[in-house]
Amino acid sequence: MAGEAAPMPAPISSSAIRMDADALNAFLTDAFPHAERGSRGYVVSAAPGHVQARMEPNDKALRPGGLISGPTQMGFVDMAAYALVLAHIGPVAMAVTSALNYQFLRPCRPGPITADATMLRLGKRLAVMDVRIWSDDPGKPVGQANVTYAIP
Amino acid sequence: MAGEAAPMPAPISSSAIRMDADALNAFLTDAFPHAERGSRGYVVSAAPGHVQARMEPNDKALRPGGLISGPTQMGFVDMAAYALVLAHIGPVAMAVTSALNYQFLRPCRPGPITADATMLRLGKRLAVMDVRIWSDDPGKPVGQANVTYAIP
Amino acid sequence: MAGEAAPMPAPISSSAIRMDADALNAFLTDAFPHAERGSRGYVVSAAPGHVQARMEPNDKALRPGGLISGPTQMGFVDMAAYALVLAHIGPVAMAVTSALNYQFLRPCRPGPITADATMLRLGKRLAVMDVRIWSDDPGKPVGQANVTYAIP
Amino acid sequence: MAGEAAPMPAPISSSAIRMDADALNAFLTDAFPHAERGSRGYVVSAAPGHVQARMEPNDKALRPGGLISGPTQMGFVDMAAYALVLAHIGPVAMAVTSALNYQFLRPCRPGPITADATMLRLGKRLAVMDVRIWSDDPGKPVGQANVTYAIP
Repeated sequence: MAGEAAPMPAPISSSAIRMDADALNAFLTDAFPHAERGSRGYVVSAAPGHVQARMEPNDKALRPGGLISGPTQMGFVDMAAYALVLAHIGPVAMAVTSALNYQFLRPCRPGPITADATMLRLGKRLAVMDVRIWSDDPGKPVGQANVTYAIP
Repeated sequence: MAGEAAPMPAPISSSAIRMDADALNAFLTDAFPHAERGSRGYVVSAAPGHVQARMEPNDKALRPGGLISGPTQMGFVDMAAYALVLAHIGPVAMAVTSALNYQFLRPCRPGPITADATMLRLGKRLAVMDVRIWSDDPGKPVGQANVTYAIP
Repeated sequence: MAGEAAPMPAPISSSAIRMDADALNAFLTDAFPHAERGSRGYVVSAAPGHVQARMEPNDKALRPGGLISGPTQMGFVDMAAYALVLAHIGPVAMAVTSALNYQFLRPCRPGPITADATMLRLGKRLAVMDVRIWSDDPGKPVGQANVTYAIP
Repeated sequence: MAGEAAPMPAPISSSAIRMDADALNAFLTDAFPHAERGSRGYVVSAAPGHVQARMEPNDKALRPGGLISGPTQMGFVDMAAYALVLAHIGPVAMAVTSALNYQFLRPCRPGPITADATMLRLGKRLAVMDVRIWSDDPGKPVGQANVTYAIP
């Protein structure tokens, strides 16, 4: 069996989404009027069970050593999770993070980063998601998060 | 884009494994001489970056409501993660868990359960893994864990 | 300032409890009829915002190296958190763990262990708790957990 | 026992610190030259096993509903944990976060917030800390985190 690719769990099936990438980006721009795009990122695609987001971090996002800082990564994780929830429930601004557990896996070098957010369970009150951040290779993520949102 | 299956991050590529399922099960039986199989589970397959394990929980594993208890699930998660580390580094008994974060996603009904453990990063000192537990549908996991092992 | 003891956040104030240590132990014995006391532990004291529990692990609780295994510690954490929730809301068997994040801090040597569970927030739907496990010195915990219970 | 204050685990004893609040603030200002104080906070006191920090969040820190955003809280948690590590090991810029698990407990209303960071274990390779954020009552934290730093 050695050498064989590791099977991944099948994606969550889910009903059609209520907001696409454009609608999500318009919503986020309204919701965070003070945030620059380089400190927040934007949605690239939205599908049932999955949102992909991208960010081109600016200089404020760096920490000693020239790496992208932990808070920048966590903020991006939270944005991708928020977008994934909104894609499924519609523009409900008051969905709020109730837990965010982030594991830093590899140094996050400067340059564009991508977030893949997948839904693990969408319940009536809570949404639980897996979010992975990577820079050039999705198979070598710089960080992995489990994020829970409370739905009002 | 609605209706399209959510893409999953590619699996971690990794060198050939050092222990296969049989070797792992023999090791675990030696390491935990007091444990019954129904309270610990066994390895079904081992490949680079991935171990699958199974468990047929016994009556001691139930909690009020007739569901499989949280500690049973977490013990099974820990076993699958331990097996995944050993598969890659060989029979090093003193690898120890340094963190286990478990999200309970759905009720875990009595009956056999499966664990899919995938490697997120295997470093010299730390291994970080994603572990998902499911009963009949891998797309509807009963729980998801992030597990870190310290390598001696 | 060196040498001064670190101030700890004040404990959570809370209304009077609904179950004391005896009531909690009777409830747990009923709820888990198959569990031996050495694999589960028992409540020592219950007060508003705090439960203390103790466990004398048996041989089945050991892992290679003769240490108390991770799943034993996590099961004990979960029991202490369950008791803390029940102490406040009364004998509601169907309160269930929704997340348990455990950090292993120090080797857990064989012998009696103590759990201190403190309430961080008791809401209508969710209870969030801090649980620390220690063997001889509460200032040197062997593990620390954050546990969330869903209240039906 | 009802009505009695819940006992808290004793603080971690620890050797004398290597950096006080002034030294930490000078170091952080150098390390993050692009950050405004209102987006990062500052150290109020440093003692063995404990650092307290404060932040007066600016408008960029708000999210829909006028609350202090999750990423702002997590960035503040990370800063307090970083300061606590540096206070003990000295000005080692390359200490990096390896995990940050944050539980949001209560709405975080606009206004100054305080972080209490306490050391759970300071090892040679890893430091594990508890960090609590509060606005007016330390007994009612708005969030609680467990943070692990890797020490180079």
